[in-house]
Amino acid sequence: MSFPPVAEQLDLILRGTVDCPAKDDLEKKLTKSLATGKPLTIKAGFDPTAPDLHLGHTVLITKMRQFQDLGHRVVFLIGDFTAMIGDPTGRSATRKPLTRQDVLTNAETYKAQVFKILDPAKTEVAFNSTWLDALGTVGVVELTAKYTVARIMEREDFRNRFTSGISISVHELLYPLMQGYDSVAMKADVELGGTDQLFNLLVGRQLMKEYGLEPQCVLTTPILEGLDAHLEDGVLVGKKMSKSLANYVGIQEAPLEMVGKLMSVSDDLMWRYFDLLSTRKTVEIAALKAAVVDGSAHPMKVKGELAAELAGRYHGQDVGRAAVDEWMRIFSQRETPTDIPEVRVTAASDAGHGIVQLIRDAGLAESGGEARRLVSQGAVHLDGVPVATVDHVVPKGGPFLVKVGKRRFARVTVA
Amino acid sequence: MSFPPVAEQLDLILRGTVDCPAKDDLEKKLTKSLATGKPLTIKAGFDPTAPDLHLGHTVLITKMRQFQDLGHRVVFLIGDFTAMIGDPTGRSATRKPLTRQDVLTNAETYKAQVFKILDPAKTEVAFNSTWLDALGTVGVVELTAKYTVARIMEREDFRNRFTSGISISVHELLYPLMQGYDSVAMKADVELGGTDQLFNLLVGRQLMKEYGLEPQCVLTTPILEGLDAHLEDGVLVGKKMSKSLANYVGIQEAPLEMVGKLMSVSDDLMWRYFDLLSTRKTVEIAALKAAVVDGSAHPMKVKGELAAELAGRYHGQDVGRAAVDEWMRIFSQRETPTDIPEVRVTAASDAGHGIVQLIRDAGLAESGGEARRLVSQGAVHLDGVPVATVDHVVPKGGPFLVKVGKRRFARVTVA
Repeated sequence: MSFPPVAEQLDLILRGTVDCPAKDDLEKKLTKSLATGKPLTIKAGFDPTAPDLHLGHTVLITKMRQFQDLGHRVVFLIGDFTAMIGDPTGRSATRKPLTRQDVLTNAETYKAQVFKILDPAKTEVAFNSTWLDALGTVGVVELTAKYTVARIMEREDFRNRFTSGISISVHELLYPLMQGYDSVAMKADVELGGTDQLFNLLVGRQLMKEYGLEPQCVLTTPILEGLDAHLEDGVLVGKKMSKSLANYVGIQEAPLEMVGKLMSVSDDLMWRYFDLLSTRKTVEIAALKAAVVDGSAHPMKVKGELAAELAGRYHGQDVGRAAVDEWMRIFSQRETPTDIPEVRVTAASDAGHGIVQLIRDAGLAESGGEARRLVSQGAVHLDGVPVATVDHVVPKGGPFLVKVGKRRFARVTVA
Repeated sequence: MSFPPVAEQLDLILRGTVDCPAKDDLEKKLTKSLATGKPLTIKAGFDPTAPDLHLGHTVLITKMRQFQDLGHRVVFLIGDFTAMIGDPTGRSATRKPLTRQDVLTNAETYKAQVFKILDPAKTEVAFNSTWLDALGTVGVVELTAKYTVARIMEREDFRNRFTSGISISVHELLYPLMQGYDSVAMKADVELGGTDQLFNLLVGRQLMKEYGLEPQCVLTTPILEGLDAHLEDGVLVGKKMSKSLANYVGIQEAPLEMVGKLMSVSDDLMWRYFDLLSTRKTVEIAALKAAVVDGSAHPMKVKGELAAELAGRYHGQDVGRAAVDEWMRIFSQRETPTDIPEVRVTAASDAGHGIVQLIRDAGLAESGGEARRLVSQGAVHLDGVPVATVDHVVPKGGPFLVKVGKRRFARVTVA
């Protein structure tokens, strides 16, 4: 096996990541791997639930794919052990234990989705019950003898619960150790996880040392911002992508829907998504950025490239590309600046002009009643933000981009 | 199976014990056992070391014997599970794991000693590896899910170590739970232990409830005071019986040695030993006490009964009785009051009379030099207390019982 140079590998591996506490070790591992031609073993653990993934979930999987593209051995580890017990941690209700069949079915659902990103031929799927069942009582005692209570209690949620008197069951202390033992059993070189997993990943590193193994390096990926994130004072601000916040792109969504949502993100967020979701090389992304900066590429065109890559990943490259073309066609019909009339309205008071009257005046509604109804329905947007109440007053100034329903637009100046 | 009345059973069971936090439950269990003719299961756990027991260790075993005499089922449980792992708790060095053969050999050494107290035919010997090995990883997780970290941390030594920053390994938290699981597996009705085991015994009680079983009652026995304990302000005061304090009676000691040591204890300590070490019924002991009080029995005679019972337990009844008779014979030759001359000496000063001159004057040494030598050797006792220095001055008064060497006695009045 031959690998790219270490610097190039590191560049891709670290892109967009948050924590990499032992970067030197990682570099050594890569150097050794390059010298010996032996791929590194990359571990990432997943709950054996039946997921309905959105792009936020794919940041980690994309990182796995990057390792795969570099030639390393990627193991998709399903944490079926605890699922088959039924983790009673939840405050309100004990989670129902999954049967072996549930776990296998869920694994298939998972694989169907993640194999849109990972190369199925190069991905090993493992189940941690394989070695955790084999530990037995003696093995568990030996494992737990290698870690102190104080160290476990450094984990923020444990510490907070302990000091606040919120009960922690003893078995909850076992989980980080068992998850760490997975790394021992797999002889992992690198473990990937979300930032919230940092503590657990480090337990794996420490336990490997205790078992006399070369310790794994750990690498965390960030939480992906939702579609509505934007730059504020040079910092990207926004809630995490989540279904309940309706700021997500599901990986099973239709191509055009996916493209529409991705085309709506700010330019700043687009670069973030490139870093975290694209499998392009870092130099390619840098070239796109340069092209936007020097004006040789329009940001919308570049956003189309991102949308095409991501939609193409889940629906096939051609379908992804076609969806972007289709979106461009609709968009240009709908929203090209030349189509948007410029309107000037006179403010009713010094404070500005009421939104209902403004819509009427701008010719975007046929009556005050219709205007009122449209606002109430949330169909009116001012500079892209839905207007929450019919009492909203638009201050003097502008021009403001006013959108009513899907097709009616005007650039309104309040004088 | 038929049992004595509940009140009589309770009387013997509770005699000399320290904690019995659920006495009502114990009474209910005894009542049910009496009604159904079904014996209670009594659990007591022991380390699988090769012990060299002294009477201090036998308090618990005597309590087991009392249960056995009442007709209950007594299980001598050997905690071989942890011994075979090698508990790394010790500060200085990891305890060497015992092999299965070590454990079995040690168990035989144990049995040879405890079967002097317990009825071998009525004693079940069990090893907790039987069910702890069978627990497996899943069983351990299920077990530990039933107990909270906060509750475990209530154990005094854990709490102290945690707050003082002295490390606790996670597996140490598992031991009380596993010891508690022993009760679950055995469906114990009563667990016996030393007072230092109270927390662990209660874990067993709590876990049995969690597993839907009728919870065991727990009963702790006190630490036995050594031979030198005595009454102070109505309270028995003294260090615990221990080999290092040389205030013990080993159960493998020769009969006459055993009897000699037991005959030397104070009358108050004698009653304590009766309560904790004798298998006599409480009413019998009360009768002996009454006889001493009304003068119908001499305390030394009653002490002889105790010594005969205990020496008889380890060497056979006849041998025990003969040892007491022999001791009495030696003692009466040596120390019977009619043999001790009454002597009157004149004080050298108002402070009293120097010990060396006193011995000379009383005719207990042939020269001042011999007297001086005897005091220096510690061979001179005044009212049973060795005289520490040749400068010791005996005040005016008396008579004092002066003993020189093994055979020379005098009752000396200093005038």
